[in-house]
Amino acid sequence: MKVFDELNPPARLLLGPGPSPVHPRVMRALGAPVLGHLDPELLRLLDDTRGLLRDAFRTGNELTLAVSGTGMAGMESVLGGLLEPGDRLVVCAAGFFGHRMAELASRMDVEVTKVEKGWGEVFTPGEVEAAVAAAKPKAVAIVHAETSTGALQPMDGLGEIAHRHDALLIVDCVTSLGGVPVEIEGWGADAAYSGSQKCLGCPSGMAPVTVSPRAREVMAGRGRPAHSWYLDLDLLERYWGGAHAYHHTISSSLVYALREGLRLVAEEGLEARWGRHRPNAEMLWDGLEAMGLALHVADPALRVPSLTTVRVPDGVDEAQVRGRLRDEYGIEIGAGLGPLKGQVWRIGLMGHGSQKANVILLLAALVDLLKRP
Amino acid sequence: MKVFDELNPPARLLLGPGPSPVHPRVMRALGAPVLGHLDPELLRLLDDTRGLLRDAFRTGNELTLAVSGTGMAGMESVLGGLLEPGDRLVVCAAGFFGHRMAELASRMDVEVTKVEKGWGEVFTPGEVEAAVAAAKPKAVAIVHAETSTGALQPMDGLGEIAHRHDALLIVDCVTSLGGVPVEIEGWGADAAYSGSQKCLGCPSGMAPVTVSPRAREVMAGRGRPAHSWYLDLDLLERYWGGAHAYHHTISSSLVYALREGLRLVAEEGLEARWGRHRPNAEMLWDGLEAMGLALHVADPALRVPSLTTVRVPDGVDEAQVRGRLRDEYGIEIGAGLGPLKGQVWRIGLMGHGSQKANVILLLAALVDLLKRP
Repeated sequence: MKVFDELNPPARLLLGPGPSPVHPRVMRALGAPVLGHLDPELLRLLDDTRGLLRDAFRTGNELTLAVSGTGMAGMESVLGGLLEPGDRLVVCAAGFFGHRMAELASRMDVEVTKVEKGWGEVFTPGEVEAAVAAAKPKAVAIVHAETSTGALQPMDGLGEIAHRHDALLIVDCVTSLGGVPVEIEGWGADAAYSGSQKCLGCPSGMAPVTVSPRAREVMAGRGRPAHSWYLDLDLLERYWGGAHAYHHTISSSLVYALREGLRLVAEEGLEARWGRHRPNAEMLWDGLEAMGLALHVADPALRVPSLTTVRVPDGVDEAQVRGRLRDEYGIEIGAGLGPLKGQVWRIGLMGHGSQKANVILLLAALVDLLKRP
Repeated sequence: MKVFDELNPPARLLLGPGPSPVHPRVMRALGAPVLGHLDPELLRLLDDTRGLLRDAFRTGNELTLAVSGTGMAGMESVLGGLLEPGDRLVVCAAGFFGHRMAELASRMDVEVTKVEKGWGEVFTPGEVEAAVAAAKPKAVAIVHAETSTGALQPMDGLGEIAHRHDALLIVDCVTSLGGVPVEIEGWGADAAYSGSQKCLGCPSGMAPVTVSPRAREVMAGRGRPAHSWYLDLDLLERYWGGAHAYHHTISSSLVYALREGLRLVAEEGLEARWGRHRPNAEMLWDGLEAMGLALHVADPALRVPSLTTVRVPDGVDEAQVRGRLRDEYGIEIGAGLGPLKGQVWRIGLMGHGSQKANVILLLAALVDLLKRP
């Protein structure tokens, strides 16, 4: 019989595209005693959690909860909740996760019009409006912080554009929530989703989701239930909300962790948190450029503070550098995805990981490794 | 601004239908440092986990993994993986989870033939064969241990029956895996799913799944991909298996916990574990009957050792007793579901929770509470 050794994962400094370093208080919360999914105390903690999530999303949306899955489960729950087969959706795709939204929606037999730009570019309001005016979709979906490219989509005016054309605005906030200004009501966004393991600084496994009253009306008018039972936002709301109807056995451990991560966000204050992520990112950008490296997104105003893409210098084996960073320094950074595979490294400074000490350490390690190939 | 208090969940003795008490070693594993989803060490731990899962399921099935969700996500991933719109499915339903399988499959536009029996009954091979012969389905689905009724479905001959009629056999093992004999290959089962928070003694959030080579051939012949992207077993296998293609950010914390729970299963030995659950359940049954209470499933051979349903005595407020058990003794037991709501209590002795001390304590507490209403 095969013997399985004692669990002994190495301590990695997680400076990749997520998961991010988990705050010690969140780790401690994970270890609290497990509660049943209908225990009054757990239901109280769920209430707290949705209140904290509303603050983080900057919304008063009643339907605000966390899906029991990763950010991708959040994406699928939102697309599947708002859209049904035959509906039209415009997806603005300028990176891996934009294209993925289109892929998920297509699989639900939604008619997808994909507006594409280069990996690292963002969309102008005019481009979004032209696409929406032409396709007359039920919704338009866009990625706020594209984790594959490091490009930050300006959101001003997009809600107005969508609503002027009687469409809903869906926003992917996976890499921005809790680290980069997210203003669900300010943007006029109708639905958004995120993940626990990025700027919220929790382990992965919970996907925050919020849906506007306008989008809920659309959901209420569906001709058939959502494509997925497990990811059905109506059923999830009946569990998280007043009725607390049994749906699935939510993981109290992950709820504890998410609530604790959100408490840390509230204690620090959202503005202060955004104000920490931004200068630490600038310090990283300055350092990388001082080393002679080029940032993939040229305009600093269009860079995601929590996720930086830097070009791999000519002649450098990018996988070897990542492997040595991991093995010699215990630091994880990410590889490029899709057309950026082999072209960029992805460096995350997210949540608890956004610290000057981490920036300096990573820069010094890169100087060392690029000097001695 | 609302202040959210420090996390302080009470320590409950979880003797309901799950989650079950988590072994201290599993709790400790939860706190190990988080790893990225593509870290070589995490991939090694995933390999261990699927090896351990094969042993627990008693199968050599290559496609054996854990879906990143609860047992319901496991159910949906299996139904959605094997079936496509228009396929025929026979569901044997004699309780909440049998009916739920039918509900999930119907939502996928599968043509479901539901064979129904009373809540607490089981199916004979003849009944299953008659239904399969009449409907000529692509698959027949049955619940091994019906968590809503406490009835244990005898599995002998069902695989043969399914295969004789060119159908696949799908089995719900949510409440049996790790506590009650499960023999995926011995039964000739083609797909099965479970949850981490029952007899495996882990927090919820991971759903073990296994699929036979025969069922994989059927999956390979699909006309379209599975209905859900997040729960797509083909994509999950590409991540868990050799290619390790990025699919979602698996929660290393939950993987650690599941692996540790499975290590505990392997150390104890499956037979020894089954041999622990059964006599502890018998002790509970004897004690309840000695108190004058009636068990919902009359035949001891057809009772699930890990989940007992006991009739609420006439004139007793079942919710009040459960509330007092929780508040005065710190013990959780479950209410009845569906037609058994208000009729039964559900008592779980699962995984680490299956201990003589827990049986005695619960019996004594029930004696106290039923004596002093």
